[in-house]
Amino acid sequence: MITFLIKGNRAVTTPNFSLKDLPGSGGRIDVLCRCLTSALLLSHDIRRNVEVILCLEGPPNEPVSIRVMGRGVKHLCPDERSTAILFQKALKAVKKGEEVESTPGIFVSNTSFLQWLEKLWERVIVLDEKGETLTAIPVKEPCFVIGDHLGFSENEEKILSKANNKVNVSPKTLHASHCIVLILNKIDEMNAC
Amino acid sequence: MITFLIKGNRAVTTPNFSLKDLPGSGGRIDVLCRCLTSALLLSHDIRRNVEVILCLEGPPNEPVSIRVMGRGVKHLCPDERSTAILFQKALKAVKKGEEVESTPGIFVSNTSFLQWLEKLWERVIVLDEKGETLTAIPVKEPCFVIGDHLGFSENEEKILSKANNKVNVSPKTLHASHCIVLILNKIDEMNAC
Repeated sequence: MITFLIKGNRAVTTPNFSLKDLPGSGGRIDVLCRCLTSALLLSHDIRRNVEVILCLEGPPNEPVSIRVMGRGVKHLCPDERSTAILFQKALKAVKKGEEVESTPGIFVSNTSFLQWLEKLWERVIVLDEKGETLTAIPVKEPCFVIGDHLGFSENEEKILSKANNKVNVSPKTLHASHCIVLILNKIDEMNAC
Repeated sequence: MITFLIKGNRAVTTPNFSLKDLPGSGGRIDVLCRCLTSALLLSHDIRRNVEVILCLEGPPNEPVSIRVMGRGVKHLCPDERSTAILFQKALKAVKKGEEVESTPGIFVSNTSFLQWLEKLWERVIVLDEKGETLTAIPVKEPCFVIGDHLGFSENEEKILSKANNKVNVSPKTLHASHCIVLILNKIDEMNAC
């Protein structure tokens, strides 16, 4: 299994955001839509060995995390709006202290980014512009940790700096969803050899 | 300059598509939105050396092409809906026999995919699953030709089969916008060496 743990610093934690303005009313929840589809969708297929954990840490009910399993997810289309509708359904289904399956393959809980990080620490590979070029996957079941356009807090940076594995995928600074495409391609190429 | 020539087989050629249903009412115009942003947007920057030509070949006024210059484009945001609004403005501005600048850096005309192909033939590199792995750029100013989810017509395939350069970027079959991310990363890596 390949996991992507992604932080949405201002992604709203209410279903009442406007589908007409995902970037503004959703606190850049559009970034998370694109990360999800980049991680799970092939042309006419789904990556069943990939799991995506989106950490929504914006107001008013933070933290919320939406975990999507490639194996099992249904109704996931490539466009942003339909993905955002799946997020609204997940945000409507949140139950304190419980992980709930809001639609097939999509699970929602109040787990925070830092709680996921602690839970997955042994598998963590941090995406870092100063990291080494990704040429091999140093752990069996990697969990790639990626920030949105705002990156990480000072405290999170401090914790992430202690990770054993930090990798870089591009000489340029790219959008999170584009980094995901590059990481998966590296893994595809390794598996094809 | 790097050019991407992309065919939208059913992308509608009227501004009267619904922003609530880009895939359906827009004839998968969402695919073209993602191709454009994948080609032009870096995190907090724009690729000024990239040009994108989107060929809309769906009803009712086909063909229409929307050409976007990284050097000069304004109001381009990462989300699909705002990109689709720029397309609506372009489709409203179409003038027969003329290329019109609908918003800064975005040009619209009635040029067809095959006309662009002829015009750019010397620079053409076809994305083809059976092509060679992209390890070097064989022409100075490459024009990458990419199909949407429906690929190309029989006649187009016949013409494209005669291209000197056919490349492959992934062992998997990917979405067009993801292929663009991989191509640009290859070029970034070559330039960084």
